[in-house]
Amino acid sequence: MTPTKPENQVTLSRRGLFLGAAAGAAAGTALPARAAPPDVSASADPMQTRHLFYGSGPQAGVATLPQKHAMVMTFDLTTQDARELQTLLARWSAAIGVLMEGAPVGQVEPARASAVALDTGEALDLGPAALSVTIGLGPRVFGPELGLAGHRPAKLRDLAPLPSDNLRPEFTGGDLSLQACAEDPQVVYHAVRVLTRIAKRTGAATVRWTQMGFGRASAGKGQVTPRNLLGFRDGTRNIREPDEFDAHVWSREGPAWQHGGTYQVLRKIEMGIENWDTDRVDDQNAVFGRHKASGAPLGGHHEFDTPDFTAQGADGAPVIAEDAHIRLVAYEHNEGTRILRRSYNYTSGLNAVGRLEAGLMFISYQNDPAHFEKLQRKLGAGDALNEYISHVGSALFWVPPAAPEGSYIGAPLFE
Amino acid sequence: MTPTKPENQVTLSRRGLFLGAAAGAAAGTALPARAAPPDVSASADPMQTRHLFYGSGPQAGVATLPQKHAMVMTFDLTTQDARELQTLLARWSAAIGVLMEGAPVGQVEPARASAVALDTGEALDLGPAALSVTIGLGPRVFGPELGLAGHRPAKLRDLAPLPSDNLRPEFTGGDLSLQACAEDPQVVYHAVRVLTRIAKRTGAATVRWTQMGFGRASAGKGQVTPRNLLGFRDGTRNIREPDEFDAHVWSREGPAWQHGGTYQVLRKIEMGIENWDTDRVDDQNAVFGRHKASGAPLGGHHEFDTPDFTAQGADGAPVIAEDAHIRLVAYEHNEGTRILRRSYNYTSGLNAVGRLEAGLMFISYQNDPAHFEKLQRKLGAGDALNEYISHVGSALFWVPPAAPEGSYIGAPLFE
Repeated sequence: MTPTKPENQVTLSRRGLFLGAAAGAAAGTALPARAAPPDVSASADPMQTRHLFYGSGPQAGVATLPQKHAMVMTFDLTTQDARELQTLLARWSAAIGVLMEGAPVGQVEPARASAVALDTGEALDLGPAALSVTIGLGPRVFGPELGLAGHRPAKLRDLAPLPSDNLRPEFTGGDLSLQACAEDPQVVYHAVRVLTRIAKRTGAATVRWTQMGFGRASAGKGQVTPRNLLGFRDGTRNIREPDEFDAHVWSREGPAWQHGGTYQVLRKIEMGIENWDTDRVDDQNAVFGRHKASGAPLGGHHEFDTPDFTAQGADGAPVIAEDAHIRLVAYEHNEGTRILRRSYNYTSGLNAVGRLEAGLMFISYQNDPAHFEKLQRKLGAGDALNEYISHVGSALFWVPPAAPEGSYIGAPLFE
Repeated sequence: MTPTKPENQVTLSRRGLFLGAAAGAAAGTALPARAAPPDVSASADPMQTRHLFYGSGPQAGVATLPQKHAMVMTFDLTTQDARELQTLLARWSAAIGVLMEGAPVGQVEPARASAVALDTGEALDLGPAALSVTIGLGPRVFGPELGLAGHRPAKLRDLAPLPSDNLRPEFTGGDLSLQACAEDPQVVYHAVRVLTRIAKRTGAATVRWTQMGFGRASAGKGQVTPRNLLGFRDGTRNIREPDEFDAHVWSREGPAWQHGGTYQVLRKIEMGIENWDTDRVDDQNAVFGRHKASGAPLGGHHEFDTPDFTAQGADGAPVIAEDAHIRLVAYEHNEGTRILRRSYNYTSGLNAVGRLEAGLMFISYQNDPAHFEKLQRKLGAGDALNEYISHVGSALFWVPPAAPEGSYIGAPLFE
């Protein structure tokens, strides 16, 4: 229960981790090396689980099993000099590599006591806690100012306006993104805080918006499907298998170094939970197309039963309603379109009229932002859930592949 | 890592728990039964640890080992009818008793599907997670409106104005308080949400303010001392031993049924962490009077070394400065005054000028609110830390003892 760091904890050495990663990549012969997610040093103690930052595949934090806590932060560029962005990405990468090992980014008490410490200290005793920090690059990184337009990933642009948009500037946009996830909220907060300090010191970027999440609302392979704050299991039909990641998440467009990248959609979705809580459960079930308690599709018995979208009740009406959430987004009804959801619940306390303010920090990864738009355009127009939710924030980023050790995220942009 | 609920989890039966509590109380012969904190069913899996709501001692959530997550919420009374408050306290108590067992407060999918469910469902699979919910009663409960003034606890009143106050109405006051703490944030949120619904349904109270906390910033006996968001260990000299609880936390004033009650101080303390982070570490150490990394008092070597407040450096100046935090609050310099701190870190994202907004949700328990005032008056006037912190919220409550099974918190008020 106490986040101690027992001396006898079994953890792999740094060398062992990298050898393991290389072996894993070599074993995945059917897939290009880039498509292998970074290896992980799993531990019985989640506070000692360690993910790899460096590698030849995608960045950690996408295929990584969702951790319990998250914080996203976006930044505006405050430079028109690509070298300053380069410095920031190099410093961020070096810091993230250290943070994901559970170490401080510098001595908390430097030998020269009159120094200002680089590390703020609050995570000093907490271990790696399965931390991952994922860097995203927004459209303006490849705009005219920085001279990097020639490297623009094929599908990176601003998201199209969507029917459900109720976007507020204070939760929208950004030129860079950080997604920090870990099994401990203080480890998450520390990582974002330290990286914010680095951004301010380089002068290249300033914070735009941030949201802390609690209680993962998405499951990876082998994880129990968690619940969102509407009380329903979220992500039962989520992407879990490596071949699904290859088909729907990892990009293989553009120059070779961009392969294994992906597009990150951030949507802050407010939920009118007090209204929702006054709704009858059979209506709630109809809105989702699932049973609230078990997660089984209506007409089914178990969570992972395949929804029968053709079934009709005695009255001839479809068992899963025409405007049910799971019908609208089902890949069977969207030419096979699938996206990886990796969301977190959040609360902001109370809203302006004193009601509980909460929602979903929706995060998705896909190899084409148009896939998100396609699904969200349909949901925004017709989803029975729209009565209770509002998309108040939005941003799109390209997530480059991981960097090999000795390099940094996005290095080929500057070569 | 996954919050599953394995079938073979060893947990004590409800009956077993109550027998255990009774035995524990009988064993503590030197102390009155009221002073024994509620028993606990500790489990290797913190998600299966269960605390007792009912009992003959104090409420859970005071002497209970601090859990990792917390949410406080205060409420304004919206009735002048004591029977409506009675109903609310009875319903809250019944619900908390169920929630602390890890159960929903009603079927998530009632047999009559057209019903509105009492339970909102999002914690359905998560277990008890060491949940405690502690009810506090504010001064106005004993004001002229409700006719309960004759039961007013001896020391309950509004807190005095204090030199560091920068209080904002939106984080200050309240007639009732809930402190929910658990090893899982979703379990915490669910409890507060369900109890808020009950308050609204009775019509007796409406939400006033709330704050979610992460990363406990106080340690109980046997726990590693955690760190606040200034990066320092917080609570090294906190109350840990039963005799210290008896001397400083549990009240023995008033009628017998009030014995084992205590006074709860809530202070929302904003920290200017971006300013703090630019300060030299030797200055930070001087502000606290401790080493940031080890937690050792200046001049000492280990965290739990007794601070030597008389030691002088080669220059004749005190090693622990005159305005150092630990010198000002030390019980040696305050006629033995001690309070139990049970605080949590928090973040609210960004403040109005785009800086990281974070701080400490300070929670203390003491058998006289004047003890908090005494220490805080001294700190507010002279603490070197005042340059970096601001007390923006404040409230005071009396925490009645636990209720025996079949009863509810505060029942003797209405007899």
